[in-house]
Amino acid sequence: MIKDIEGFLIDIDGTIFRGDELIPGAVESINFLKALNKRVTYVSNRGNITRRTCYDRLKAVGVDVLEEEILLSSTVMAYFLKEHYPLSYVWTLGDSGLKEELVYHGVKISETPEKADFLIITLCETLTYHDLNQAFQAVQHGARILATNADKTFPNGKEKAIDVAGMIGAIEAASGRKTEVVIGKPSWFMVNKALAQLDVPAEKCMVIGDSLESDILMGNMHSMKTMLVLTGNTQRKHLESIPKRLEPDYIVDSIYSIVKVTL
Amino acid sequence: MIKDIEGFLIDIDGTIFRGDELIPGAVESINFLKALNKRVTYVSNRGNITRRTCYDRLKAVGVDVLEEEILLSSTVMAYFLKEHYPLSYVWTLGDSGLKEELVYHGVKISETPEKADFLIITLCETLTYHDLNQAFQAVQHGARILATNADKTFPNGKEKAIDVAGMIGAIEAASGRKTEVVIGKPSWFMVNKALAQLDVPAEKCMVIGDSLESDILMGNMHSMKTMLVLTGNTQRKHLESIPKRLEPDYIVDSIYSIVKVTL
Repeated sequence: MIKDIEGFLIDIDGTIFRGDELIPGAVESINFLKALNKRVTYVSNRGNITRRTCYDRLKAVGVDVLEEEILLSSTVMAYFLKEHYPLSYVWTLGDSGLKEELVYHGVKISETPEKADFLIITLCETLTYHDLNQAFQAVQHGARILATNADKTFPNGKEKAIDVAGMIGAIEAASGRKTEVVIGKPSWFMVNKALAQLDVPAEKCMVIGDSLESDILMGNMHSMKTMLVLTGNTQRKHLESIPKRLEPDYIVDSIYSIVKVTL
Repeated sequence: MIKDIEGFLIDIDGTIFRGDELIPGAVESINFLKALNKRVTYVSNRGNITRRTCYDRLKAVGVDVLEEEILLSSTVMAYFLKEHYPLSYVWTLGDSGLKEELVYHGVKISETPEKADFLIITLCETLTYHDLNQAFQAVQHGARILATNADKTFPNGKEKAIDVAGMIGAIEAASGRKTEVVIGKPSWFMVNKALAQLDVPAEKCMVIGDSLESDILMGNMHSMKTMLVLTGNTQRKHLESIPKRLEPDYIVDSIYSIVKVTL
């Protein structure tokens, strides 16, 4: 029963927004949860923007949000590096939001690709051959590969555009090296940070999101309740004969159903 | 004995040129072979330039060359498409030389990525995210993947820059689809076209090149004599414990040795 849930991990793209459009009822749903004193954190695999950018975007549409409630894969990558590799210097392959987020959290950026300890890969919609080759130089000179996420596509208007998997694939194929850690959902690191932020045990949490492979899998692997929304990547036809670990506890048309379910 | 060789398949980058620099003695060596009435063809995995561009480059340094003696992987890709898929429309991911070469040989370019039957991949030093995504859209809409070559790096000044393998890796990783044919050396298709051009049986041919995996392998797989030059990708240290199929018949400091060996 949802009334027993104390903490919510809410996905953003495909759950609150579809492309640039706000999904009807999303803001009301979140503010409804807040009014019930539920704890909320926003957990997104977007790694090419800063938390501040995301905060502004949510605030602009009327979500009652605090900046520290937002966990992007760029933010969590910064936490990961600060926690496990505080001495390291990194190079980035991705849009400028990644680098800004890392710098904001005190991660050190290498002066040159050749000196970097890690190459951090995220989506790069501003990619050029020069960017790709600089990242490649980092890896050729020994930088280890980390990625904010490994999504293959993201919805961009009517098309599914090439996502981080493309950038990772380019570097891995040419270097023969592999990505060591993918930080985003469904990784444990994202979950740990979300639970720490919520301050609620996993058993009393629910994940709400549109992706079976990132949102639902993450929740199921960590004893959380899971709610799949059909406003994003997943449609009903995708739900036939899926493995047990991807099965959501609830399947709803949109996040707005939460208002009805809780009544 | 080299005096028994009637046809020569000569690699260009790493054998005649190193980056933009002409390798000392290269022009003299080729003109020496021509003076002995040997048949010569230039066989290069470069797919991002036209044959005309390559011809101009060789002519400019004094090589006695005919345009039809040059077989780039872009040229041979055009032959392949005309021979096996004459009805097809293609989309390209690569520098403009590829498209120009295909058009020159009568290959039809698709109006949009979505309508393409094939995506042809080569090195794209002018790559942008938009190019990559358009190529990805072609594959998402059913285009089959072909590549001019699959080299991982090419020498660019002091660094080894990311090559076609990076472009292929991006598309394959994000689409989950694989490249069906790689046209360049050491493929049979390149060999067939070279032998047809030379009009000499394989047993009376010699491959001269700097790459074990493309030049030497190609020659060994087709009963040709093979000569490895150490002016490009391969150094003596790379020759320890190599498999039999990569072992060259001759290992020389540069192509200029051919003048001495034939005497």
